[in-house]
Amino acid sequence: MTYHLLIQALDRMGLIHAISGVLYDFGLNIEQNNEFVDKAHNRFFMRTEFSGSIDEEMLVRAIKGRLPDVLIKLCPKSKKRVVVMVTRESHCLGDLLLRARYGELDMDIQAVISNHDRLRDLVEGFGIAYHHVSHEGLDRDVHEGRILDAVLDHDPEYLVLAKYMRILSPEFVNRFPHRIINIHHSFLPAFVGASPYRQAYDRGVKIIGATAHFVNEDLDDGPIITQGVIPINHTFSAEDMTKAGRDVEKQVLARALKLVFDDRVFIFGKKTIIFE
Amino acid sequence: MTYHLLIQALDRMGLIHAISGVLYDFGLNIEQNNEFVDKAHNRFFMRTEFSGSIDEEMLVRAIKGRLPDVLIKLCPKSKKRVVVMVTRESHCLGDLLLRARYGELDMDIQAVISNHDRLRDLVEGFGIAYHHVSHEGLDRDVHEGRILDAVLDHDPEYLVLAKYMRILSPEFVNRFPHRIINIHHSFLPAFVGASPYRQAYDRGVKIIGATAHFVNEDLDDGPIITQGVIPINHTFSAEDMTKAGRDVEKQVLARALKLVFDDRVFIFGKKTIIFE
Amino acid sequence: MTYHLLIQALDRMGLIHAISGVLYDFGLNIEQNNEFVDKAHNRFFMRTEFSGSIDEEMLVRAIKGRLPDVLIKLCPKSKKRVVVMVTRESHCLGDLLLRARYGELDMDIQAVISNHDRLRDLVEGFGIAYHHVSHEGLDRDVHEGRILDAVLDHDPEYLVLAKYMRILSPEFVNRFPHRIINIHHSFLPAFVGASPYRQAYDRGVKIIGATAHFVNEDLDDGPIITQGVIPINHTFSAEDMTKAGRDVEKQVLARALKLVFDDRVFIFGKKTIIFE
Amino acid sequence: MTYHLLIQALDRMGLIHAISGVLYDFGLNIEQNNEFVDKAHNRFFMRTEFSGSIDEEMLVRAIKGRLPDVLIKLCPKSKKRVVVMVTRESHCLGDLLLRARYGELDMDIQAVISNHDRLRDLVEGFGIAYHHVSHEGLDRDVHEGRILDAVLDHDPEYLVLAKYMRILSPEFVNRFPHRIINIHHSFLPAFVGASPYRQAYDRGVKIIGATAHFVNEDLDDGPIITQGVIPINHTFSAEDMTKAGRDVEKQVLARALKLVFDDRVFIFGKKTIIFE
Repeated sequence: MTYHLLIQALDRMGLIHAISGVLYDFGLNIEQNNEFVDKAHNRFFMRTEFSGSIDEEMLVRAIKGRLPDVLIKLCPKSKKRVVVMVTRESHCLGDLLLRARYGELDMDIQAVISNHDRLRDLVEGFGIAYHHVSHEGLDRDVHEGRILDAVLDHDPEYLVLAKYMRILSPEFVNRFPHRIINIHHSFLPAFVGASPYRQAYDRGVKIIGATAHFVNEDLDDGPIITQGVIPINHTFSAEDMTKAGRDVEKQVLARALKLVFDDRVFIFGKKTIIFE
Repeated sequence: MTYHLLIQALDRMGLIHAISGVLYDFGLNIEQNNEFVDKAHNRFFMRTEFSGSIDEEMLVRAIKGRLPDVLIKLCPKSKKRVVVMVTRESHCLGDLLLRARYGELDMDIQAVISNHDRLRDLVEGFGIAYHHVSHEGLDRDVHEGRILDAVLDHDPEYLVLAKYMRILSPEFVNRFPHRIINIHHSFLPAFVGASPYRQAYDRGVKIIGATAHFVNEDLDDGPIITQGVIPINHTFSAEDMTKAGRDVEKQVLARALKLVFDDRVFIFGKKTIIFE
Repeated sequence: MTYHLLIQALDRMGLIHAISGVLYDFGLNIEQNNEFVDKAHNRFFMRTEFSGSIDEEMLVRAIKGRLPDVLIKLCPKSKKRVVVMVTRESHCLGDLLLRARYGELDMDIQAVISNHDRLRDLVEGFGIAYHHVSHEGLDRDVHEGRILDAVLDHDPEYLVLAKYMRILSPEFVNRFPHRIINIHHSFLPAFVGASPYRQAYDRGVKIIGATAHFVNEDLDDGPIITQGVIPINHTFSAEDMTKAGRDVEKQVLARALKLVFDDRVFIFGKKTIIFE
Repeated sequence: MTYHLLIQALDRMGLIHAISGVLYDFGLNIEQNNEFVDKAHNRFFMRTEFSGSIDEEMLVRAIKGRLPDVLIKLCPKSKKRVVVMVTRESHCLGDLLLRARYGELDMDIQAVISNHDRLRDLVEGFGIAYHHVSHEGLDRDVHEGRILDAVLDHDPEYLVLAKYMRILSPEFVNRFPHRIINIHHSFLPAFVGASPYRQAYDRGVKIIGATAHFVNEDLDDGPIITQGVIPINHTFSAEDMTKAGRDVEKQVLARALKLVFDDRVFIFGKKTIIFE
């Protein structure tokens, strides 16, 4: 079994020595190790990958014994249970379905939920459940409640918004802290909100981008995981940008998920620390 | 002699045929030709490069004869007369001095004007005049007046703000319409205004950038010429970003100037059409 | 109907004027126009996009009337008939299936042919015919003959080798001149031949890439259409490179096909002229 | 004082614990730490940055005491003494002169040596000695001997070949093992040898690049430090590529030197391990 050990602490002398000491006592060989000290906040982050057969609780207790105040997350390397939410666009979803099927991302897609019925054939062709939860004629709250029910049925570790074009309420978001990942079709914080490609067209930018981020209560303001860009020029209409942007959107989302599902992402305040 | 012919017009059938007909009548061979139609505004843009010995006025009159309403700019390919303005940072300025000296940019730097005296040695080492126009103890208007005098002494075709960190008044800007080029140290429109790297640090972005643009009356809002980006990560402090950003700033500015000085840039409304 | 008009000729004065004159006479408005003169070979290339209802033969004859020696290709904008060939890898194929289904590439995939049976489910899930033509126990010639029969059954305009890992004979290739497009998993001409990622690993490069090219008689030596790269570092094993390379392979192939199917690619000698 | 501690060893359990233990015993706080295990060769690499006032020998002895077989390099963070060698091109040299002067690279340029006299003014304008060692009328050996004398006069830690266009003999190279850094104007291993841009033009590639590498006995075959690329297209002549390539050459060289001078580069066999 391979494990990912993530530790956060107030920085001080001897942390690496103490933690590596516990692993040594357990007879574990470190296969990959990364540390980072955020000097502005005097904060220490460490991710360790090791293999072996251990009693997980005992290891955590041993670390806590030496370093009582640290935050510890110990995850066996494993496929994450994921629910994907979409609206009408196929490019991110299609890419995720392929990557899940062929093991390019460590996830099991439990179900796809959409407020439209457009992508059912695609999803079911991959043998995955598709839930159409229409928003038509429903109050926002009622619709979101139905979405929530559909999500909870599958008890996912992560929710991936693969171009889900409706805003989720803070109540919804707070049920899944640090567990909802969104792809936004702009280079945040440029072009927050609706129609970012139209905004980019109007401003005459020469590069467009996409941003994968954790969703928090504030729209488009959660901790950023990955960003990507592509050059454009004066020949691109807003619609051309939309088409060209699809490729960067799906790549950026896939890269973000790879990092998250491999337990490489720490969240600290409004930012991420990522050991690539 | 090589010429650059730039034409703007309301789009309609037969424009290319009519213009190329005039050139044919003058016995000129087209060496490079680019056209673009902005369908949203029904606007036609064309840049033609040709060599030959011509009466410039006669050629312009011949085109006007067939197409009375078009905007025509006919420029002999030549080095542009440029004044560079800086504050304290050397990286863009140094790069421009080298490129001017070794013919990598088609410009003659007439003078460098700064509100500090820090970069005098560098500039004078290249045999170029350095004017220190201190702002200390002066009203903004008075200082800008002195800057203006220094600029006008050199009668430049273009003013290049190579990290000039003071805001120019609309009155100043309007004396040089479409002739002032600025390098802004962010990927506009993200992080408008002061301390963009600090803003980028606080937001936790994963990519930073730079933007070269024409200066108009509104801060950081002029037509964008070129943009560039570099990836960063959680290990970058705001100061690290400032350092890393220097490389992209100078590249983006140099690319913009290359395009402008080669008469490849049209301005239409708040945007640029650029034939690379 | 939208048309793409491609013209190649010995360069001389008046070509643009003559061609645009014919279009004007036919009452056609040019929507997009690109020209290029290869000065080293004194060769002129032009691509024109226009809409209208025309007698195609008459237009071609009219151009030939004025310019008897030019090469003309007049294509109505349309979906290309395509056969895709693969071996065992899913990433390029999956991407093409998605793009064809959702109109991101102007192609109809007539069939997928493979020397393995591994990707049948994927392909048939998209409602497309899958032909397994095993090479086991067969002479190379015999196997290729069966592949050829399967291809010819579908009469494709283009053959796309989406990680087809067997070498095609010159005889096969010559039946489809300029109509076979391959994705090679290296930044050609680095790492020609087998196991390019292993070669890249052994050499310790810091960037890997992919190349989409037309297939000619010489292995990995046909005219290059598009190339792409991604940064790597010392932590990448050859297998890690293989995985990371998939993303650039599929992007590079998709970009190449977009250009080819939109009739934007000229082949001249061993090179391509591409009007993006 | 800030120190960089570089350790190489056969991988085994407990290395990090043991090394960090020594640092802890010396009362040193680790400010930055990176490890890498090359599993294919069972080799461990670690770079540690710490500040403090230490007896360097004592620290090394303490580590050797616990881990007798490891390779240790302990460097106080400091400016490196550098000699730059050039032929006729100014772009890399000019960039290095600026970066040295304004502290963007941790180096003191002791002198510039060239087989031409072309760049004297530039170098002397920066207050640095310029040695013109003409090769005209000299045997290769004799010329190289004079170059060597000029180099040794300045006792440099590193020799930087900033477009020095002559091949150095193995004897010369072996006097400076892992201390000569070259910028090659292609994306190695594509286009080894002379006129890489001409080779790139003839092949019709769509991307060109540059490679910074340590020089060893085999031409263009030393361990690669950094590589960079830029897109090109059919409009680029070989000369246009040469011009466009200058920007990537100087960036790639500067990035390589930054890493080397910051003691971030391990050499192992024909490859580099780099902790960025």
